[in-house]
Formats: sequence, structure tokens, C-alpha cells
Amino acid sequence: MKCGLVAADGAVLHRETRPTPREAGGRAVLSALLETVVELAQKAAADGHRVRAVGVVVPGIINAERGTVSAENLAWSDTPVLAELRAAIGLDQQVLLAHDVRAGGYAELRQGALTGTTNSLFLPLGTGIAAAMVVDGKLVSGDGYAGELGHTRFVHGSAAEQCACGQWGCLETIASAAALARRYAVRTGRVVDGAREVIELLAQGDADAAVVWREALAALTDALVMYTTLVAPTRIAIGGGLVGAGETLLAPLREGVHARLTFQREPEIVAAELGEEAGMLGAAWMAWDRVAADESGEETV
Amino acid sequence: MKCGLVAADGAVLHRETRPTPREAGGRAVLSALLETVVELAQKAAADGHRVRAVGVVVPGIINAERGTVSAENLAWSDTPVLAELRAAIGLDQQVLLAHDVRAGGYAELRQGALTGTTNSLFLPLGTGIAAAMVVDGKLVSGDGYAGELGHTRFVHGSAAEQCACGQWGCLETIASAAALARRYAVRTGRVVDGAREVIELLAQGDADAAVVWREALAALTDALVMYTTLVAPTRIAIGGGLVGAGETLLAPLREGVHARLTFQREPEIVAAELGEEAGMLGAAWMAWDRVAADESGEETV
Repeated sequence: MKCGLVAADGAVLHRETRPTPREAGGRAVLSALLETVVELAQKAAADGHRVRAVGVVVPGIINAERGTVSAENLAWSDTPVLAELRAAIGLDQQVLLAHDVRAGGYAELRQGALTGTTNSLFLPLGTGIAAAMVVDGKLVSGDGYAGELGHTRFVHGSAAEQCACGQWGCLETIASAAALARRYAVRTGRVVDGAREVIELLAQGDADAAVVWREALAALTDALVMYTTLVAPTRIAIGGGLVGAGETLLAPLREGVHARLTFQREPEIVAAELGEEAGMLGAAWMAWDRVAADESGEETV
Repeated sequence: MKCGLVAADGAVLHRETRPTPREAGGRAVLSALLETVVELAQKAAADGHRVRAVGVVVPGIINAERGTVSAENLAWSDTPVLAELRAAIGLDQQVLLAHDVRAGGYAELRQGALTGTTNSLFLPLGTGIAAAMVVDGKLVSGDGYAGELGHTRFVHGSAAEQCACGQWGCLETIASAAALARRYAVRTGRVVDGAREVIELLAQGDADAAVVWREALAALTDALVMYTTLVAPTRIAIGGGLVGAGETLLAPLREGVHARLTFQREPEIVAAELGEEAGMLGAAWMAWDRVAADESGEETV
């Protein structure tokens, strides 16, 4: 869990990382979250700050009406996270619950690679792949369901593998950081230390690394062309572990997308800027925006 | 050109259809449009109505800032349609320029099959395929570029044909009404009277009609699954000539989409309700909404 205390201007006053006790089950994960929030609030008070709002982002599907979260990774199923948070921290603070990737996209939009755009995409390629879509100036919610670009099909026929989601040929099965490491290991029988090692092997001229990399690039290119055709972003910010490859990733994506587009508006393809802190910063921005909206009497987002 | 006079409550006071002189070139098409608008305004005045706004929808890419339209079908390339319209009808009326399919979607949202939805899709399958996307309660514009679902790739490998747009394997090459008729003719050597005849042959048990139909359904199912995963609509309204097939089209799409979804929210798949008038009604709704927004001092949409 990446967490911190963030001032209204986006300055990070304190940051820390805590373990997520996944193996202990959903209740333990929730308890660890509540404990973290309470302890951070105590630390803020001890440091002389006033906590105005708490932003929590999770890798799951949020039911905004009921304040519940379903997240396979955390063993949560319609878990009443919002109510538990409110009970734990008291009623003086605003509490905001959001999807982690969408929060990351919000941070990139507010202070990162997507600043100034009205139609854009934040696409972190990490353990999984999800996307934050900015459409006509707003971050898309789709009642919590939108943005699952990682679970759209870009591998066809006999090459398609089954995804953890149950579908076949999802982008995530071929182009996530986890997929690159897994596919390299399956291909060579050699277990590697994540996508980072595959990228190192690629730089050293390893032929198997080149194959799994090329396959990932082909699927990603397809996905960006599809997204560009359907939603017309002016900028696409790639994040997550894979973007550690830098231009090795970005240059062929740009060339591949450019070569495929005919009538569409061509997006810039850039690296995301906020790295692993994007989700935390987005949680803070969303929480502060909620405070500002409340103060101005506007409807909350 | 489908045109009419529409009251503020959506009642159609007059409707007519005029030819589009495509073969005479872009200037002739524009002149015919201007003439139509002027004559309809005169008719309205003669009937004792006051024209408050003119809504014009076109099958092309609109540059909202400059009021220009590019539309291959009409031989328009950055043609200053808005300025010409304003010059032709005078400055007393609001003029609104919009994309025809998005306007159709707006009408379905206001009075048709998408009424009451906040995340939904209008997908007319006609000569071509474009889509109107409703996301978080708003019709998506993407600066005029969004919604080109017909030009995303759902035919792969050697089966992919080149599309008029220059790309390969577009949905439009296999699942538009025009594609069905063309593919049946190519397969059998027998020219048919549009998709309608293919649908009739299908009902009569024609094996070739069954093949082209099945291929269209497979690509459409893929497209709806992709769209559902990415944008999470609660309802999808299919329009255009193909929906004349009714449940022959809709039932297998529903079954196909249902069978493929795993974690996604399943959308209703229904027939659009407004038929060929959707674009005209959408133009009118958009124009009236512009008038209402002006009167209330709000920003125009």
C-alpha cells in the first residue's frame, strides 16, 4: 500500500509503503487499510496538520451508490469499504473511494503527462493492464466498470491464452509486465525476475526476449489503434513497469500506430510521469477536489 | 437528405426527402443543402412558424472551432459549411452542425431506445458503421473524431479485406448492410438488392446467405464485447438497415455477447426506435437544446 499525506497544492508532506496482507484474506486487508488511515491521520495531527479528506484507491470495481468494492486480488466481494472507513476515521472528514488506475490517470491529468488534454488515455502496463480514459474533458467512470482495455481481445486463434478474467486472448495475457516475464519463462524454461529482466535480455540481443517483446508490441499497437479510432485521444501516456524500457517501447509503438492510421487523428504517445505514486497522488487530488466542490456548493464528482 | 420542421416538443410539423447531388461534386452538395434550409425556413414562415434554430447533420468529421466539415462521401474537404449556412439564412437563428450518427444517438437518448441511460451505445448498421457513444450521461464528441467503431479491426489474417478508409479488416467490411450484400454477391456471383435480400435469402434457408450472416454476427459480437469491456454501456441500440432482420440479428448477438462476458456488466441489446428519422430528430433536439441553453445563459453544448 502506497500512502501519504498530501497538501492542497499537491505537495507530498509524508509518504510510506505498507504491506498488503493478501494471503490473510479480505478482512485482514480491510483492517490493514483502516489501521493505515487512522495512523496516518494521527501522524498528520501530531505534525500540526488538519486532515480534510481521505482518498482511498483500490484495484477493483466500486459500487459508488453503496460504497462497496469487489476486488479479486484483495478477496473483497461487495465489501462495504466506504462505511468501514467512515466508522474508523469519524465524520469530520470527507472520504473518497476510487479505482486505482483511474486515480492514477487523474493525477497524470492534473500534474503529469496528460496535463492540458481533454481527450487522452493513461495506460499503465504492470502486473495487469487497465486504463483511465479522459473523454471530452472528464475522467470516464462508467459506473466503475469502464476502462478495462487489458481485457479486450488482441490475440486471436490458436495463439490466444486464457486470461485470469476467464476470457481468451486478452491484451493483458500478452502485453502486461507479468505476461512478458511469464511468456519468456514458458518459451525458454528460464524463470526471470519480471519484465525488467526481459527488457535487459532484449538489450543484450536475446532472441527469445525479442520474440515475446515483438508479440507484446503488436498487440499493444492494435490496442492503441483501436482506442484511437473509437475514442480519439490526442495523447496516450504509457505507465507501469513496462515503460521502464523507455524508447525501446515507445518508439516502435509510435511507428506502428502511425503506419496503421488512415483518417484518424494521430495521438502523441508518451511516458507517464508520476510512476508508482500516480495512484496515491490521484487519490489526494480527487479528495481535495471533493473538499473544494463541497466548499463551493457544487455537486461532487 | 432527410429534412423537416420540428417543434420544441419534438413534434414533426413537416418532413421531406431531397436528393443529394453527390455526382455533381462538393459545391453542388453544399448549394443543395443551403437551398433546402432556405426553402424550409420560407415554408415555416408561410405556415406561421418562427424558426429559432437550424440543425444540420452530416456524415463527416466536423471541426467545431472552424465550422468546417470533411466528408469523403460528399466531396467536402474542410468545407466552411457553418459560415455558408449562416450567410444563407441570416443571423437571427442559431445554427448547429453535428455528425449524423451522433445526432441519431442523441435522438435515441432523448426520445428513443436509449432514454434514461447514462452509459449506452447507438450503433446503426447501414451503408457504413459509425457509433454514437453515451458516456457518464453525455454524448461523446472527441472533437468530432470519436465513435468510429466501424473502422476498428474485427477481421484478422487472410480473411481481412481492405476498407474504403484504407485500413484492413474493419468491422464495416464485414458487418455493414452494404458489406453483407457485397460479400453475398462475391461469394455467389449473384447480385442482390441490398442486405434486405440477403436477410430474405437467409430466411429461405440459403446456405451462402447463412455464411455471410454468420461472419457478420461473429464480428459484431466481438465488437460489442470489446465496447462493453472498455466503455461499460447498460444498453446498446442497434439501428440501420440490418436491424430490419429483427430478432434474427438481435437474439444471436445477445447470446453471443452473454456467452463471452465474464466480469463485465452485461448490456441490454435492443433495436433502435427512430429508424431513418433519427438523424433529423437529433438535429432538431440539438438545435432546440442550443436555443434553451442560450436562453438560460448556459454554455452551449
